[in-house]
Amino acid sequence: MTVWENKNFYIVKHESKLPWLKLFTKTEYKELTDIPKDIKSEMYELLEVIETALINYYNPDKINLASFGNMLPRIHWHIIARFQNDPWFPKTTWEEPPREYKLNLPNFEEFAKLLKADLDEYR
Amino acid sequence: MTVWENKNFYIVKHESKLPWLKLFTKTEYKELTDIPKDIKSEMYELLEVIETALINYYNPDKINLASFGNMLPRIHWHIIARFQNDPWFPKTTWEEPPREYKLNLPNFEEFAKLLKADLDEYR
Repeated sequence: MTVWENKNFYIVKHESKLPWLKLFTKTEYKELTDIPKDIKSEMYELLEVIETALINYYNPDKINLASFGNMLPRIHWHIIARFQNDPWFPKTTWEEPPREYKLNLPNFEEFAKLLKADLDEYR
Repeated sequence: MTVWENKNFYIVKHESKLPWLKLFTKTEYKELTDIPKDIKSEMYELLEVIETALINYYNPDKINLASFGNMLPRIHWHIIARFQNDPWFPKTTWEEPPREYKLNLPNFEEFAKLLKADLDEYR
């Protein structure tokens, strides 16, 4: 599900019950140091718009950020809202969850609308 | 093991056979958006100095970057050189490794010296 896009980036929802977004550059870059300076600045700003929207809407205990790209050797960011009572906490969401999903989070579609508005305003 | 420090940051080696560094801010910030702009710019530049040094010395298949902070709610970065024949690849290094460690990597202490020189030059 594409949440937002502009000339250089697109943002999708990761398949998860957690508020978990992925930020992709439209042009593929293998590593951070391969990204042109202006695209990189925009990327960092978009990470913060997403982080701020997640914090304001979900009030998470922590934001997790990661760029791996081992499967797909291109820079893309995972931005995940984490909660002390989510199935994985304090482990990463790549590990086996030690407990069941019992969160009762507000509606993601409503969040996506607010995030899109924030991103449009940023652009 | 502290590899390097300056006024705002310190860099330590993570306890791992992989080339795995951690970048900490000296002042603690919970989230990306809590970090003052100048410190954040310096942080991104340091990430790139570390990434470049890892690529030049180890020629890894991919660099992994992550900021979780679930255990310790303060921004700190993991910067990891990954290899197709490392125990975890293409999984993250937080997951169970599907194979044994059989890499034959060049000496970390030698790398640390080169990295320090690059960081001193940057500063």
